[in-house]
Amino acid sequence: MTPTKENMKTICINLLAKRGVKISDITEIVFDLQKKYVPDLTMAVCEDAVDRVLSKREVHYAILTGVELDMLAEKKMLSEPLQSLIDSDNPLYGIDEILVLSICNVYGSIGLTNFGYVDKTKPGIIGVLDRMGKEDEHSCHTFMDDLIGAIAAAAASSVAHNSAK
Amino acid sequence: MTPTKENMKTICINLLAKRGVKISDITEIVFDLQKKYVPDLTMAVCEDAVDRVLSKREVHYAILTGVELDMLAEKKMLSEPLQSLIDSDNPLYGIDEILVLSICNVYGSIGLTNFGYVDKTKPGIIGVLDRMGKEDEHSCHTFMDDLIGAIAAAAASSVAHNSAK
Amino acid sequence: MTPTKENMKTICINLLAKRGVKISDITEIVFDLQKKYVPDLTMAVCEDAVDRVLSKREVHYAILTGVELDMLAEKKMLSEPLQSLIDSDNPLYGIDEILVLSICNVYGSIGLTNFGYVDKTKPGIIGVLDRMGKEDEHSCHTFMDDLIGAIAAAAASSVAHNSAK
Amino acid sequence: MTPTKENMKTICINLLAKRGVKISDITEIVFDLQKKYVPDLTMAVCEDAVDRVLSKREVHYAILTGVELDMLAEKKMLSEPLQSLIDSDNPLYGIDEILVLSICNVYGSIGLTNFGYVDKTKPGIIGVLDRMGKEDEHSCHTFMDDLIGAIAAAAASSVAHNSAK
Repeated sequence: MTPTKENMKTICINLLAKRGVKISDITEIVFDLQKKYVPDLTMAVCEDAVDRVLSKREVHYAILTGVELDMLAEKKMLSEPLQSLIDSDNPLYGIDEILVLSICNVYGSIGLTNFGYVDKTKPGIIGVLDRMGKEDEHSCHTFMDDLIGAIAAAAASSVAHNSAK
Repeated sequence: MTPTKENMKTICINLLAKRGVKISDITEIVFDLQKKYVPDLTMAVCEDAVDRVLSKREVHYAILTGVELDMLAEKKMLSEPLQSLIDSDNPLYGIDEILVLSICNVYGSIGLTNFGYVDKTKPGIIGVLDRMGKEDEHSCHTFMDDLIGAIAAAAASSVAHNSAK
Repeated sequence: MTPTKENMKTICINLLAKRGVKISDITEIVFDLQKKYVPDLTMAVCEDAVDRVLSKREVHYAILTGVELDMLAEKKMLSEPLQSLIDSDNPLYGIDEILVLSICNVYGSIGLTNFGYVDKTKPGIIGVLDRMGKEDEHSCHTFMDDLIGAIAAAAASSVAHNSAK
Repeated sequence: MTPTKENMKTICINLLAKRGVKISDITEIVFDLQKKYVPDLTMAVCEDAVDRVLSKREVHYAILTGVELDMLAEKKMLSEPLQSLIDSDNPLYGIDEILVLSICNVYGSIGLTNFGYVDKTKPGIIGVLDRMGKEDEHSCHTFMDDLIGAIAAAAASSVAHNSAK
């Protein structure tokens, strides 16, 4: 039996924490993405948006799958050549970007643009994860940095839609 | 070091065979999808199209990742609740459909429609894999049936584009 | 000044009606798509789901854009070769399928599969629109049939998600 | 009768030129996107990649459709509220980003990230078009800047794939 949607959310938030990411790390990226478009933006509004994204079933499933692949790669438990592709964060692998499309689209197509931007510029915790994955041979964050970027991008879209109401 | 693109293709074709799928199984689905649009369609044309799809890097990566998740689920090596979600082929999981989007799109957006159709109607080997995954508790084909459907759908698009030249 | 979200919904429902599609036509397709998965499914549940889909901003924008292109094609007001591509519903055109992706994804990736299926099988009003567009030289429904298929597919996904709660 | 694929390419290149964009404007963006990953990158390699992207059928169709909508908006020939949404480049409209997805994906999922990045940073001609569309009330480039960004992003992906061979 699979957990309820509410329990699944708790499982995912705990999993992100275990992999080094706090909700506030994501909220900060959302704030930075939207502050120039929404003059009176508050951190509380951004936190609510992150919470809404983390309540969605398709987001849970993407987190569970991506983090699992990162952890299996860290334990060298994947078959070759997949083990090397994920462990080395091969830039042509591309499955990490595909996996998180389901997250980006949760609040409309403007999430895609934000995702592409943070994936290139790697602000805040995304840059930390990316460097850790590349420098520490025991860490793999091939999926994790894209998951966080996509959650932040979807939350930024939600902020944009709500502030236009 | 990751294999060359040519070696990667061989690895993937062998992996499909190990999981019970021959190239000719896919070719048959392509032929059935396109025969009503291309009157003089031959199996050789469909086989060439499948070969083109199986030469693409993004297709290799999707195959390697999806088949790995199926095999790990069969060995009960995934963490819960992901293990149960994949092992039971939960209809809301949806990551299998997302993963194969990269394959569907290889020859344009008409691949998506073909994919949706075969994913619902489960012709030929796709139906065999789906039933095996659901009935045999030692088999998991949650990703495999979508991978095959997407390869067939992309190859059908390639046939459609070429026959319009 | 653009209309409020609530006014936009009314504008879109009226536009669908003007182009020959009633809400109940869409509800019927949703019911047929989901009845085998949800034993006690009612038309009221499907109607609510269609209403939720028709309340989304990205759905409004896709409807406004697609229907406009169909109507301009009917009036022969598009430039060549676009006029001929849309007017003849060229099977390789593919922009109609791309445009409605934003609708399909509104309730997760399982919407894509349903869309692909109805786009091939053309149940109910979708088949009527498709034939009218192809047979009557004064009618163009190149975008309309995909819009209706995508709205039905997204509503079916919403029904599936809710019945799993 | 629709033009051949080769004629369609010429039509599209001429259409881009008519709307103020030269091939070399796109090539420069590709070079800037890839120079840090490919040390010995030349402009000739980037120009070849742009040419490959501009040879694809799905790219032709996206260009024809997007430019048509921009030109109709300039002539105030669209129905309201679509006319205002496109003419004002409403940030929530999002259909421009959806339309060009078919271009971004032509060389795999890494095109999406590049597209999101250029869509936010608006380098070179993309910024010029964006400002012109917003400042000059007779110009509308709502679709054009996304089309150019997507062509550049897809060409950058092609360069990345080829340099990895």
